[in-house]
Amino acid sequence: MIKEELFFITIVSYLTRVQVEADDKEVLDQIIDSLNSLANHDKHQGHFGKQENNISVKVSKIQENDMKKECDGKRKASVLLIGAGRVCRPAVEFLASVGSDAASEWYEACLDVDEQKDIEVIVASLFVKDAQEITEGIPNATAVQLDVSDQESLCKLISQVGVVISLLPASCHVIVANECIKLKKHLVTASYVDDRMLALDTNAKAADITILGEMGLDPGIDHMMAMKMINEARMRNGRIKSFTSYCGGLPSPAAANNPLAYKFSWSPAGAIRAGRNPATYRYNGQIVHVDGDDLYDSAATFRIPDLPAFSLECLPNRDSLVYGKLYRIQDEAATIFRGTLRYQGFGKIMATLAKIGLFGTEPHPLLVDGGSATYKTFLCDLFGLEREKPVGEQEIVERLTKLGHSKDPGTAAMVAKTLMCLGLHEETEVPSTCKTAFDVACSRMEERLAYSGSEQDMVLLHHELEVEFPDGQPAESHRGTLLEFGSTKDGRTTTAMALTVGVPVAIGALLLLENKIKSRGVLRPIEPEVYEPALEILQAVGIKFIEKVN
Amino acid sequence: MIKEELFFITIVSYLTRVQVEADDKEVLDQIIDSLNSLANHDKHQGHFGKQENNISVKVSKIQENDMKKECDGKRKASVLLIGAGRVCRPAVEFLASVGSDAASEWYEACLDVDEQKDIEVIVASLFVKDAQEITEGIPNATAVQLDVSDQESLCKLISQVGVVISLLPASCHVIVANECIKLKKHLVTASYVDDRMLALDTNAKAADITILGEMGLDPGIDHMMAMKMINEARMRNGRIKSFTSYCGGLPSPAAANNPLAYKFSWSPAGAIRAGRNPATYRYNGQIVHVDGDDLYDSAATFRIPDLPAFSLECLPNRDSLVYGKLYRIQDEAATIFRGTLRYQGFGKIMATLAKIGLFGTEPHPLLVDGGSATYKTFLCDLFGLEREKPVGEQEIVERLTKLGHSKDPGTAAMVAKTLMCLGLHEETEVPSTCKTAFDVACSRMEERLAYSGSEQDMVLLHHELEVEFPDGQPAESHRGTLLEFGSTKDGRTTTAMALTVGVPVAIGALLLLENKIKSRGVLRPIEPEVYEPALEILQAVGIKFIEKVN
Repeated sequence: MIKEELFFITIVSYLTRVQVEADDKEVLDQIIDSLNSLANHDKHQGHFGKQENNISVKVSKIQENDMKKECDGKRKASVLLIGAGRVCRPAVEFLASVGSDAASEWYEACLDVDEQKDIEVIVASLFVKDAQEITEGIPNATAVQLDVSDQESLCKLISQVGVVISLLPASCHVIVANECIKLKKHLVTASYVDDRMLALDTNAKAADITILGEMGLDPGIDHMMAMKMINEARMRNGRIKSFTSYCGGLPSPAAANNPLAYKFSWSPAGAIRAGRNPATYRYNGQIVHVDGDDLYDSAATFRIPDLPAFSLECLPNRDSLVYGKLYRIQDEAATIFRGTLRYQGFGKIMATLAKIGLFGTEPHPLLVDGGSATYKTFLCDLFGLEREKPVGEQEIVERLTKLGHSKDPGTAAMVAKTLMCLGLHEETEVPSTCKTAFDVACSRMEERLAYSGSEQDMVLLHHELEVEFPDGQPAESHRGTLLEFGSTKDGRTTTAMALTVGVPVAIGALLLLENKIKSRGVLRPIEPEVYEPALEILQAVGIKFIEKVN
Repeated sequence: MIKEELFFITIVSYLTRVQVEADDKEVLDQIIDSLNSLANHDKHQGHFGKQENNISVKVSKIQENDMKKECDGKRKASVLLIGAGRVCRPAVEFLASVGSDAASEWYEACLDVDEQKDIEVIVASLFVKDAQEITEGIPNATAVQLDVSDQESLCKLISQVGVVISLLPASCHVIVANECIKLKKHLVTASYVDDRMLALDTNAKAADITILGEMGLDPGIDHMMAMKMINEARMRNGRIKSFTSYCGGLPSPAAANNPLAYKFSWSPAGAIRAGRNPATYRYNGQIVHVDGDDLYDSAATFRIPDLPAFSLECLPNRDSLVYGKLYRIQDEAATIFRGTLRYQGFGKIMATLAKIGLFGTEPHPLLVDGGSATYKTFLCDLFGLEREKPVGEQEIVERLTKLGHSKDPGTAAMVAKTLMCLGLHEETEVPSTCKTAFDVACSRMEERLAYSGSEQDMVLLHHELEVEFPDGQPAESHRGTLLEFGSTKDGRTTTAMALTVGVPVAIGALLLLENKIKSRGVLRPIEPEVYEPALEILQAVGIKFIEKVN
């Protein structure tokens, strides 16, 4: 019963959208034919089991829907959102709300249109339950089951909507993108535009569609803020002498209640590995390379002048020079640097944990061949400490100092506190799934450094530009900062990370539905037609980017 | 109409309370007589204008009220809260809620009684409008007008209740305390117990009443946490070798969005002056004195090991040795230190502002005799800069360095940013009310460093104990931390400061109403009969004090 209703909604929204966009009867007839043909060909049972009957009802309802549209004066559109992960809910909430009275305050102003669109959202997920959890309580959102490797189902869903958003793992976007090209539908993702995606540029242009990637936070809002600041400086004849950019997904200061001042909202493995990526940047005209093994040690204290309460440090973030080219500042900027933000102390502690072998990926003798080690035995083995004696903060500090892993006593104490906090001194058995030191570290970090009930995450994005002007005008420092915290409402937590990725990706879909993005092919939000309205809408919905110049 | 209703409630609560406490008809008759006599004598118009009619109704309702009490099975009590300042609302909300179902979870457990009391709260303020704003929307709270210098009105209100809370300025508590002694009613305040209050100890004991002072945050929760930690260590034969305590009322990190990383919720004058108080503490057995003029310069970097994200520093807070005596650790603790927390950089910036004369209290030549200076003229005069040239960050940094006021470039830059943030480079006229540099500083800080709409404050209280044990047991580090943020609900902001002062003072009243505090005379919350249930209730209502030992 519910499934029939859901299908009814999606089809209605599809037809309504067609009516708004189709300029003549011929195109409309053609589309209705395709739809009927799709419905008749379908053999897939389950969610779409009874669609034939429904289709006939819907086609006959075109006139009625037309009437309805004219009555409530709202235009209709629909979006397919594939992937029901963390980022999905804020994206759905945003899209579902754009037709509301609350959105009327910004909709017409930011999009320069005369009336709002009501957007129906279809959330598709491999497990329909995940999608249902997302759409729960959102009237104009529908959950459907979808295995993206089932081309027929994918194609059917894409046909129903105006724009597709893929929140799948990055490697799956190309499958969706190819279908979007075939069906001439725009696609938005929050992932990096990789070579496989770039290779679709010609086909996307030929299909007259836009594939808008990097439409999240980082990549995403970072591009938008950077390009806005750079282009505004250029409009005033400024030359960008220095571009530095810092971004971090962190626990809020109150939630950073452990010695590492960090928490994991999912598996720590990726985050630990990312801390070993080599990095390249330009500083005062010199190219600087940092080896992966030295990355944690290269952490440098960092303060945001207008937010001095945060005790931060930054780690160089991969290849910053790529951004020089992307932002077209590579010929003028003596400094081009992108960094990852952590709270102060993180780098030194992680560097020390790496030195003592806690991130080793070789099978560990104590953990293989059915051995049963406790955390304490394992730690004593790493440190060469006696297993029989008690192991406490004091013993760890002494050993770290003796082994030369921590040069200053402050760091040694923090490393010891971190190991204690992870429970690596405890006489509990190491799970048999852990075969390497890295496995142990990940398992302990996932358990002991997780967010608890009321704890919130935080997103901090900060750009600094040094701008020079001709004719001896004084140089200027331009700063742009975005600071967001997670929030809990009616028992449901929205993380700052999900919000700042989900809302931009949804804004991308809205801009395409409203035909505000004219460029076709594979894009990033570095063009004014994307970032100008996107930043305005972000600001309007409370995701504020504060700019200072002096 | 509203006024009549309010009066109705206060009288009802009075009679109801009497019925609970009066053991025999004789006492009750006597009180009703006094009440009628009071009503007939009263000549005061306005709030009490029509009380005669109401009284007759109320007296006839005694039986009905008695029935009602028996029906709902709740005991009744009432509290008079004098002074409708910032702290008042959380205190009223707490007291008004203790009879609720929500409070049943902790009430009986924390207070070891069989049933909850319903508490009627009377809020008295010089301007009844202030009190009405506080009681708005709280069903069992009533607002009344009261000038505490009007002894008859004061006495009348105190007679009606079981316990009095004074939230008046500290100097006014003695007036209230004297009436409480006469009328044999307990009194609670959140202010320091001063000599005038201590002098009332004998009279309070003779009247068999308790005057519980220092029942806020600092003083208040700081005492409770300290005594709990000290007494628990002593129970295990520990000796307190070091006691260090840190407390700050600060903007939340996100609201600390200016170079000084500080905001003022009321006049900055007191806060600036407090930064010039001399201080004394004991460090490793040595007494250390800090002159008032050196206080800002003595700020030291401070990190809480379990909350490393906060970039803090601390300034010694007046005479720490007094606390050694109060907590009875003066003979064993080699270190006794109390500090005020600020975000890092505050001390150096304030010290520099003092050096350039921004806190000077002498009439300033430019500002007296009807002169009309702009902020820029005034700043140029302070610095010896040319008035005709533009003044920017760069010029200020150069001048600070030349004058030797800032030894490091980082501080000079932050001082310059602070002066710009205060608008002291602007060509706006200084208001004629400012006669001294100090006036200018206060006026600018009040305007430019105020909390805006959604910004929240924060309270951070942290104690550290180093405890030694006999027989070679390892020494322990005990840490206790309280971290609270302001919150906004239905458009009304409750600051963390108001919450952490208002709730303890209200808990003091509840403990006295429930006869949990047996000691009489002038007390502080350093006795187990006060701090044990008080900390339990604080914890139960979500004001959490997190303890760590290692």
